[in-house]
Parts: sequence; structure tokens; C-alpha cells
Amino acid sequence: MLGSTHGTLTTDFRARVEACGESPRTAVHSSAAPSADDAAPLDVSGRPLHADVPDLDRFFRPESVAVIGASDAEGKPNTGITRQLIAWAERVGARLHPVHPTRPTVFGLTCHASVADLPEQVDLAVLLVADPLPVIEELAETKVKFAVAFASGFAETGDAGAAAQERLGAAVRRSGLRLLGPNTNLNAFEEFREDLDGPAIALITQSGHQGRPVYTLQELGIRLSHWAPTGNEADLETADFISYFAEQPEVGAIACYVEGLKDGRSFLLAADRAARNGVPVVAVKVGRTETGARTAASHTGKLTGADTVVDAAMRQFGVIRVDGLDELQDTAALLARARRPKADGVVVYSISGGTGAHFSDLATEAGLFLPTLSQAKQDELHQWIPAYLNVANPIDNGGHPVGDWRGRKIIDAILADPEVGVLICPITGPFPPMSDRLAQDLVDAAEQSDKLICVIWGSPVGTEDAYRTTLLGSSRVATFRTFGNCITAVRAYLGHHRFTAGYRSPFEDAPRTPSPSYRKAQALMRPSQQLSEHAAKQLLRAYGIRVPREQLVTSAAAAVRAAGLVGYPVVMKASGPQLGHKTELGLVKIGLTSASQIRDAYRELTDIARYENVPLDGILVCQMVERGVEMVVGVTQDDLFGPTVTVGLGGVLVEVLHDAAVRVPPFGEDQARAMLRELRGHALLEGVRGAPPADVDALVEVVLRIQRMALELGDELSELDINPLMVLPRGQGAVALDALAICR
Amino acid sequence: MLGSTHGTLTTDFRARVEACGESPRTAVHSSAAPSADDAAPLDVSGRPLHADVPDLDRFFRPESVAVIGASDAEGKPNTGITRQLIAWAERVGARLHPVHPTRPTVFGLTCHASVADLPEQVDLAVLLVADPLPVIEELAETKVKFAVAFASGFAETGDAGAAAQERLGAAVRRSGLRLLGPNTNLNAFEEFREDLDGPAIALITQSGHQGRPVYTLQELGIRLSHWAPTGNEADLETADFISYFAEQPEVGAIACYVEGLKDGRSFLLAADRAARNGVPVVAVKVGRTETGARTAASHTGKLTGADTVVDAAMRQFGVIRVDGLDELQDTAALLARARRPKADGVVVYSISGGTGAHFSDLATEAGLFLPTLSQAKQDELHQWIPAYLNVANPIDNGGHPVGDWRGRKIIDAILADPEVGVLICPITGPFPPMSDRLAQDLVDAAEQSDKLICVIWGSPVGTEDAYRTTLLGSSRVATFRTFGNCITAVRAYLGHHRFTAGYRSPFEDAPRTPSPSYRKAQALMRPSQQLSEHAAKQLLRAYGIRVPREQLVTSAAAAVRAAGLVGYPVVMKASGPQLGHKTELGLVKIGLTSASQIRDAYRELTDIARYENVPLDGILVCQMVERGVEMVVGVTQDDLFGPTVTVGLGGVLVEVLHDAAVRVPPFGEDQARAMLRELRGHALLEGVRGAPPADVDALVEVVLRIQRMALELGDELSELDINPLMVLPRGQGAVALDALAICR
Repeated sequence: MLGSTHGTLTTDFRARVEACGESPRTAVHSSAAPSADDAAPLDVSGRPLHADVPDLDRFFRPESVAVIGASDAEGKPNTGITRQLIAWAERVGARLHPVHPTRPTVFGLTCHASVADLPEQVDLAVLLVADPLPVIEELAETKVKFAVAFASGFAETGDAGAAAQERLGAAVRRSGLRLLGPNTNLNAFEEFREDLDGPAIALITQSGHQGRPVYTLQELGIRLSHWAPTGNEADLETADFISYFAEQPEVGAIACYVEGLKDGRSFLLAADRAARNGVPVVAVKVGRTETGARTAASHTGKLTGADTVVDAAMRQFGVIRVDGLDELQDTAALLARARRPKADGVVVYSISGGTGAHFSDLATEAGLFLPTLSQAKQDELHQWIPAYLNVANPIDNGGHPVGDWRGRKIIDAILADPEVGVLICPITGPFPPMSDRLAQDLVDAAEQSDKLICVIWGSPVGTEDAYRTTLLGSSRVATFRTFGNCITAVRAYLGHHRFTAGYRSPFEDAPRTPSPSYRKAQALMRPSQQLSEHAAKQLLRAYGIRVPREQLVTSAAAAVRAAGLVGYPVVMKASGPQLGHKTELGLVKIGLTSASQIRDAYRELTDIARYENVPLDGILVCQMVERGVEMVVGVTQDDLFGPTVTVGLGGVLVEVLHDAAVRVPPFGEDQARAMLRELRGHALLEGVRGAPPADVDALVEVVLRIQRMALELGDELSELDINPLMVLPRGQGAVALDALAICR
Repeated sequence: MLGSTHGTLTTDFRARVEACGESPRTAVHSSAAPSADDAAPLDVSGRPLHADVPDLDRFFRPESVAVIGASDAEGKPNTGITRQLIAWAERVGARLHPVHPTRPTVFGLTCHASVADLPEQVDLAVLLVADPLPVIEELAETKVKFAVAFASGFAETGDAGAAAQERLGAAVRRSGLRLLGPNTNLNAFEEFREDLDGPAIALITQSGHQGRPVYTLQELGIRLSHWAPTGNEADLETADFISYFAEQPEVGAIACYVEGLKDGRSFLLAADRAARNGVPVVAVKVGRTETGARTAASHTGKLTGADTVVDAAMRQFGVIRVDGLDELQDTAALLARARRPKADGVVVYSISGGTGAHFSDLATEAGLFLPTLSQAKQDELHQWIPAYLNVANPIDNGGHPVGDWRGRKIIDAILADPEVGVLICPITGPFPPMSDRLAQDLVDAAEQSDKLICVIWGSPVGTEDAYRTTLLGSSRVATFRTFGNCITAVRAYLGHHRFTAGYRSPFEDAPRTPSPSYRKAQALMRPSQQLSEHAAKQLLRAYGIRVPREQLVTSAAAAVRAAGLVGYPVVMKASGPQLGHKTELGLVKIGLTSASQIRDAYRELTDIARYENVPLDGILVCQMVERGVEMVVGVTQDDLFGPTVTVGLGGVLVEVLHDAAVRVPPFGEDQARAMLRELRGHALLEGVRGAPPADVDALVEVVLRIQRMALELGDELSELDINPLMVLPRGQGAVALDALAICR
């Protein structure tokens, strides 16, 4: 069965007319295990530390291509596809060899009966056959480097097709070749405009139709260099193409449409490589909601992952996530072509005070920095702009100066200001005598400046010459249609360069061997059990995390002795496996100040436990900890990324407001501190209502130690929760007052 | 001086070439006091309860027009303006009379030396003179109904020009005519396409350039009926035009670009009238940030108001606030033309599983309801759509069925589903054999259906026939260019009809006469003073708001007696005017259980007060109130709207997270409850960690009583703050534990 459930329209639909006659086949889900080869160094959790970048030169620029299932028979879907492949092979200068069991020639080219009969070793084989599996095995014999499989009916059709995909993937791994697909399409063989120069966008999509708008940007003068339609990713995945594109000199930005990821770590390693090379990655990632995640999964048979985790992981590695395809186009186009900014300052320049006020309002709200221009600069501008108009930034030129020689002088004066990195000129309504001249002046100025000039052409019509010819004709001016998209793109542009400037790969410092803590910790693990509070706290101590002085006792008398050692006042708690919600059950007594209170408490706690029928390993007698800021620190397992670390504000804030931040290991201290800044209630750590500032350094240290634990215990630990972690005033540390640990 | 700092480009810039030679004039800010005439009924705060809708028929469709300062002399700005006014007068069938002291004729029309010499009483006088003031007085004599003043250099130029505007406004009020401007432009005299039918957009702008994109929608087939460029609003303001447009049968939606409002109440009354008539008002309101507010104010000389208040006020009265002009265009166009929805259900229908997944994800996140289609409906769809494709919603047709007879059947089957109110079809990439047919089928289906069909044409090019001709050619299909704008508009569309269906004007029930509480309250007010806690609590009691049992005492012995009456344990607090931050100063003692503790506390509190040198009216001995949910309820004065009521979560939540909701009186119980739902920490009121649900009814009652107080005390009360209001478990009420009141 041929074609793709989401291929380019040009072939997809013909193909599917035939496709839908047949029924899909069976298989299991493609594994989410690390995909790096075994030679690559691994971190302590067994995940790779380097992306192995496939050399895809011969995939995109092959010298020889075989088309298996080639056809020139009327009405066959393969005929149209074959015709397009022949045209493509001519463009890229590749020799094309049709392969078909019975046909002597195809479109006049000598046709070979089987792969074995090919006249030369080919770089790339395009499989237009319903079942690629046997062909893969034949290809392995002939040392073909790459194959592309169009056939659909695999993981995207559910458990059924997934088994077939699993078998296909296994065959590919045995064969040594690299496979694109199955369930992909002709997008990899599109024609790209050769007349455009400068840095290009490289496109990666899991849906041909969704990639079409970015591809179409070429009609607006934006250069594209590659398109990788990854389909079901039985072998080659989105991450492989990100890594490869990040190494290509002509690629200025990578634009991705992602529905699901095959593996979290390989995606992060690819993003890390792009970040090291300073190549921006802009991505639409479906799955913000349950609906989206479910629908996307059913569409590609991939995992969407918990969206908060995906979102955090992308931010950690500088991947710019956008929502709409229009944002993907505008942001990728700007980032691909704009040079490194000279300054963070944005100046808004318009022919209308209203437009300037409106744009500045939205830009400032979005976090862009609009510096007030120096008095000297304002005086300079007032040579050409009437004195009663505001030129502090935004600059209102009142309109008429753009109609004559003054227009260009104003633009150059703005660009000359060292505080200015970006000049944005919103033109909401076209008025040729003004806007045509203004557009031309901006284009000319951009040619002679190393600063970014953005124009918003607000007319809903968009057929005006100043827009189509003048503005879109320039590769130096970034032209937008809406305020919103311009602001999104400029924020991403400045943010990307800030991020890469200070970027240090966390994989450099990721632990590769277990710490001494690991052995102690392992001894405490109880497979598929929830540990008692006492055991969980020992786990924390193994990683050097402070817990209160406490003793586990099994008699009232022992409790009194323990209190003496721990020091009054004390807290008493029931401790046992599978024991949660202690407070709600009344299994916690605080502020006990005398032996008699302790004996009463011991009796009461054991009575309740008996009545509620909860098994105890004893009663904990714990030191009371003076007030601090209650936080929560935890570890959870994500389908895509494995163990993740969460920190949040304790008590009501995390329960009611879910005010928490998550990170995917490995991450450094900078990210641990960034997590705290992300918390809405962050100010609590600085001290409110006269409370002293909390020991943030100690909190950060706990987060990093928990990360280490999460990496070392890896899959052995399915969940860990310190709640609360009492963060004491600065210099006094942090204490884990309660902990929950569940083993795999 | 002629022209406008933000007029239409066509006249503005010529005008300003001349304008900028001169220097602006002086004046004070135009008053923000209620603008309704004295006949109108007032609420207890002295604000009007009815918008007096000016009859603007003769303004927009005058029978006779005078142009004061008309010119046909080469090179004069007025010459171009006069020419355009003559053309406009011909279009609307008005007799035009040029007025100029010396010219015998203007463009062949007999010219009159002065207003007094006009041959007839004119409906409208257009003032092209530098100083409109004297002309206004002449016009008053001749009973002219309306005047338009182009001259700039008024409030938009600061205190200077504002005084002149104040004098102009006063002259207009004396004259009995209604004035548009000053600082307006030719936008009121634009040409509108006559060939478009159906409901139209009426446009109101405070900046001509900013209105241009909405006006230009006519080139895309969207009908416009009016454009009111309100300029500086010395007399006629945005609200007047909203009220008037809301009464016009041809107006389907009102689109506004607002930088500042002249008066809050008149805006709300206009929005109320539109809500009653079911006419949607869509507005861009500048001022989300300080920068925006400052810049906008300097541009129009109007108040922007506290943005959170403006935002809340708009939501209260169903005004749809958007950020971008593109959203203004798309949302107003949809709301103007779409009929009342048959159901809230949205179905996403696409030729690509990827597109469906992506769009559904964003739509669901935005709060749209995507019902899962019934099995029967899915079976019906599977007659035409291959079995392996998902048709539950989103519906993936796989592409090829849209190429033939099946396409229309699928669309009709979807529209026939009673759960479906809106069908959205995203077409991200054009492929003529598919998308042209699909577009035509959607247009045809829309003609025969009473349900809304939306299409997103995602191609960045936008010159394709299917888009320009087929889709834009239909007044029944709503066509968008981005997923985001479609979702914003559809959400606004469904929300508007939900809102108006359940709308009851709060002005109906607004109090007009003071309650008995008012006299008691007045007796407690101390002009320009902060009341003591005790006095502030008496103010609350005057309005029937519960406070703890408490006594104000001035000796330790009296304190002990008071404790006996109040009941142990008690709280003791210093009470005095100008006394805030009691806790930080150590002026609060809680949980006192004995006479000796009380005597010690009394001594300590008075010592601290003496040491800190704070004047006391005594020590409060208060009942301890058992735990509940701490809330904050307050009143603050807004420049635009007067007294506003705020409710928030107490303690840390309001201080650190600013988790509060605000409303502008008058509002009903429904809005008081809506305020609570807006709080991020709302769940706290339902009880968390086994806490009982709080007495929300009592909380709502307090909010409504505080509103009453705010309205009755009006400007006498500059600030009131109940912090905390302890909301007890359901059925037990709410108690104001502390209160701060500052009098004007």
C-alpha cells in the first residue's frame, strides 16, 4: 500500500485513492529506548552523551538512485511519483535506476528486475512497494546507504501496524543502511529555488501538509535548503536531521513540525548540538492538551510526552517553541537571516503616534526592551521631525518627513544609536506617496547597516507593490503581517542570541559513574514498594540531604528516651510502607513538650494505625524544625525523557496553584536557579512580611543532589517526593521534613 | 493650524507639512466627570444610569453641509480637503456650501463670506480653520446641528493645548450643537462600498492610521457602514458612537481602536446598550503597560485608566478586547456576519491528520468545545472516508474524498449534526485539485446552512484563486489566515452569544438613593484621614458586615474586663489613626488566655506605641476567630471609573501572587461570584487538605455590601481594605478581622 496519511498533496492523495482499498497490518510501538550506538559514552543513567550525527550528504545529494517499484503505466500512483523522482534526480545530478520485476524500461530508462541486478552500488533507494521489509534485506546485500519507504499502514494505524514497523526497524538495524519512513512522501525530493541566496531554513516535518506553508515561503523570497519528512521514524528521526542540519553551512535556522518524539534524550542531544553551533531551532510541538496529544499520537504512533516536561526540555536547550504555523514561518525566517544583534534595544518608528503607542504597548508587555533615546539623539531627530512630536521611543515622525529626503536621514540616525539593536517600523495602512518611499528607504538603509530592520505591513490585502516587490524583495528587511508575529519573532531572535552566548552544554558535566551514595541508596530500595518515611529519609541522607534528628521507636518508653535525645519539643508520626496522607489520618502529632504527652501521643498514633489497619514499622520521634519556607522537591518518570526533577512551593501553593517548575537531567546550577525564578511565588524565598530571606543556595544544592539521585537510580526509582522541604533562613540550610519514595 | 496628529494619510500629511511650522497652544485636561445631561437618572454615586444617545443620522447623512475655510487655491491643504468633501457630499446627496471671507466661489460653488450668510440652516459644518472657537459661537446662532473640527494642537500637545480644548468644549456645551474633534480628520467622510450587503462593521478610532486596516477590509468583501474618527473628544466621544451604532439596523458589529476613554461610566452605559441590543463591540485598548499608557496619553491627551480595571469593566459588559489590529479585523468581521450559533460544539475537518491534531490542540487549549461525534455520525462519515482514518473530531478525510462528489456529502453530514455549531476547516497548503473543490463545496454548503463555517487559508502567499475569489467571495464563510485568529474569533463569537443570552443590565438594579447605612457611615468619616481600625470596623458594621466581638479600652484593668465580656482566648491590638503594619511593629498579640497575660500585653503594646511614637485611640480587645479562609476585600478609586471593588485571597497569595479580581460598580451577584472564579487560588474556598468548604455565600454578600458602601460614599472614601476577611466554613458566615479606611 502506497503513499502517506500526511504526505505532500501533490502525491499523497493520488496514492491514497489506492491506499484505502487495503487494510493496515499489525505491529508493536516503536521503542522509546536511547537510539545512540553502543560505542557512544553514556551517562550514569545509561543514556547517551553524544548525538551520533548521520552523514546525510549522500541522502540529500546522491550520485545514484534506485527507484524500487518504478512505473510509467497510465493511472498507477507510482507513475506520477516516478516521474517526479526522475525530474528531481536530474536537478541534483544523480543517475536514476528504475527497478521492476517485469518492465524492461521505465520512461525510457533501462529497468532492472531486482536490486541484485543494479549496475552500480546506489546511494539511495526509494521504495514504492507495499511491503518494504523484504527489499530492505536485499538492499543490505548491495551496501546501499539510504532508503526511503513511502508505504503506510504502520504505527500510525495503532498496535496493528506497529508490529510491522518494529520488524522493519529491526531489519534496518541489521542491514546497516539508514531508512527514512515508513509512511513518508515526496517532500524529501521537492524543488528548491536556486535563485535565493543567504542563510536558508531547513525544514523537518511529521506531516507533509503541515510543512507546506513553510516550504511556500520560497514564493515570498525566503530560502529553503532541505525538507525532511520523517514519517513514522522507524529509523531516522527528527533528532538525526536536527543534528545534521546544525552542521550544514547554508542552514541559518531549523524549522520543525513535531507531533511526537521517538526518544527524549536523542532530541535533547540534537538540540544541544544546535545550541553549541548557534543554529536556532524553531518548533511547533503538538500536545499542549490531552485532545492534541491523543490525536497526534493516533496520527503518528509516537509519544507526545507530558507537555510541561517537553516544554521545559525545549527551553533548557534553547529550542524556540511556537504555536502556529504562521509563527513558525515568521520566526524561522527572521532567525535564519538576521545577523547577531549589536544591542538588545528595540526602537519603534512609525508615521502615526497611535501606531507607535499601540505597538510599544504590546512589545513592552512581551518583554522587549524599548530604551528611551538620549536627549542628544532626540535633538538630532528633531532636525527633521516637528518639535511637538514624541521621538523618545516610540518615534512618531508625523508622516510627512518620510515623503522626502528627511526619511532616510531619520532611519540612519536611529540605526547609528549604539543602544539600538532592532528598528521596527509598523505600517498599518498603505498610502503610496508615503509608504512606498518609506519602504524603499528602509530597504536601502538595511543594505548598508548591520542592524535588524523589521517592518509590519498591516494592510489585510497584501498585494501592494511596496509589500510584494520592495519589502519582500529584500533579504535584509524582515517583513511581517501582524504586530503579534513580529514581536514573537524579535523576542525569539534576541533570546536565542542571549541563550547561545551563555550556553554551556550540560552533557559535558553529566555524571558517568555512580557516586558513593549510590551503593547506600541501592541497599534501601524495595522493588515495586513504597518506602516508609523513615527509609525514604535515609535515601535522602545517602545523598547528603539533611533530615531532622529523628528516631524510629516501637514502644512508648523508647519514644520518651528518643525525645530526650532528639530534644524537646518533638513531632511524632506513624511510619510505615504504603503510608500517605498521615496528617489527614491524624497520624502526626506536633509540639510535644513532655514525657506524658509523648506517651499519650504514642498510644493514640498506634490506636489510629490499628483502627485504620495500616502496617507500621514504628513511630518516628522527630526534632521540631523552626519556621522556614515550605518547598516541594520531587522526581517523576516521563515516558519520553525518563526521570525529571520538579521543585515547587509547598503547602497550598503547590496543591492549589500547581506552582512548580520541572527540568530534565542533566542540567546545571544555572537551570536549578532558573527553576526557582519560574515559580510565581518566587518572592516568598526572598522573604515577605518581614520574614528573613530563605537559604536559596541550600535549596539549589538539594535540587542538584536530587538530580544526581534521579540519574543514578534511574528506572529503579519511579517516584520521589520531599514535601515539605523546609528552607531555613539564609545560611541555615534546608531540611526534608517528610519524604515519599516509590520503587519500580 | 490644520490637520491631525493621526488623521487619514490622504489628508493628514499634507496638512501637517503646514502644521508643524506653528507652535501648539495652551489648556487644561478635558474633565473626566460624568457627561450625561442633568435630566438623566443618576445612581447613588451621582453617576448617570442611562446613555443619552445622540441622534447622529444627520451627521452621517446630512442634507446640507457648510465647509468653513473652503479653498480651491493651488497648494493649500484645504483645497484637497474641500475637493474630497465635495465628492463625499455628492455621494451622500447633501447640498454643500463653501464659506470663506474673500472667495466668491470655490470649485464653481457659490462661496459665502460667513456662517451668518449661509442660504439655509445646515445640518453639518466642517471647520477647516486654525481656531474653531469663534466659529462655534457663530454656528450656535444659526442652529447648526453638528460640527467637525480638524484643527490640532489641543489636549494631545499637553497642558498647553488642553486649556484651549477646555474652552472649546465649554463653547460647544453652550451652543447646543454637537462637535466631532478637534484633532480629527477626513475619516468620517470616507467612501464605503455600496455593492456589499448583509450586516456591516461600524468603526470608531482615535487614530486614523490605526483604523485604516479595518477600513481596508472592504477590499476583501467585508462591509463597512460607518467610520467615526473621534479625535480629542472635546464633545462627542467613543461612547456616543457605540450607543448610536448599536441602534442602527445595518450594523452587525462595532470595532473600536481606543487609546484613552473620556469617562468610564459613559463607556459602560454604551457597552450596556450594545449588550442589550446584542450588538458585539470588539476593541483594541492601548495601555496594557506603563509605556503604552504613557505613550497613548501623550498621543490623545486622554486617560488610559488602570488596565486591570479597564479589562474587568470590558468583560463585565461583554466588550471583546483584542490585542492586534489583525484580531480586531478578523473578530469584528466574524461577529458582524455570523448568525446566532445553533450549538457550542466545534468540529475540525481537514485533509490532513496532522492539521487536525494541531488545530484541535490549540482550539481545546483556548477553551473551545470539540465534542466527540456520535458513533452513528462516525459510521455515516465512514461511508465516504476510509475506515482507518479518525472521524471522531477532528475529522481526517485523508484528502482524496474532497476531490470528488463525496466532499460535499461529508460537509453536509457534519453540519447536520445537532451538536455542531461551528465547522472549521484548516487548509494549510493549497493543492488546486483538492483545495479549490473543497473551498467551493464549503462555500456552497454555507449558503444552504444556518451554521457557521470557518476556513483557515494557511498559504503565506494569499494570491490563490480559491482564497481570493471563492472564499473571500462568500459572505457566509468566514475566512482566516492563521489558526490563532480563527480560534480567537470563534471563541469571541460563541462567548458573545452566551453572554448576551444571559445578560441583565446591572444599571436596572443600581441603587439610586442612599440606604439607612449611609447616614451611620457618614458620621464616621473623617475627611482626608485614615480611620483607626476600630472606626473602620464600625464603618463595616454600618453596612452589616460582621466584625469580631471587640472592645476599645484605655487601661489594663478595662482590658481584663473586656476580655471577660469578649471571651477568652483574645487578641489585643493597638488601635489608632494612621496606623498600618501593626504586625510588623509588634502591635498585635494573639491567643491571650489569662488576665495576667492581658495586663502584660497591654503594657507591651502601649510601650511599643510610645516608643514608635504612634498616637493610639486605645487598645482593641478582640474575640479570637477560629480558622477559615483568609480573603481580602477592598475599595479603590480609579481615575476613569471611580470606586472599584477588589476581592483577593489573603495573606501570602494576594501579597506575592497578586491573586485578586476587580469589578466596577454597578454589578450583580453573578459578577461577584465570577470574581471568585477568576482567582487562581479559587479552590481554597472549596476546601483543600480536608478543610471544610468556606461560606462563599457570605463572602459574596460582603462583596455586594462593600459595593453598596463604595457607591454611597463615592468620592468621600478614597480607600478601604478588609484584610483579612476570615471566611468561615459554609453556613457560619465571614468576619472582618482587620480593616483600613482612608477618607478623602
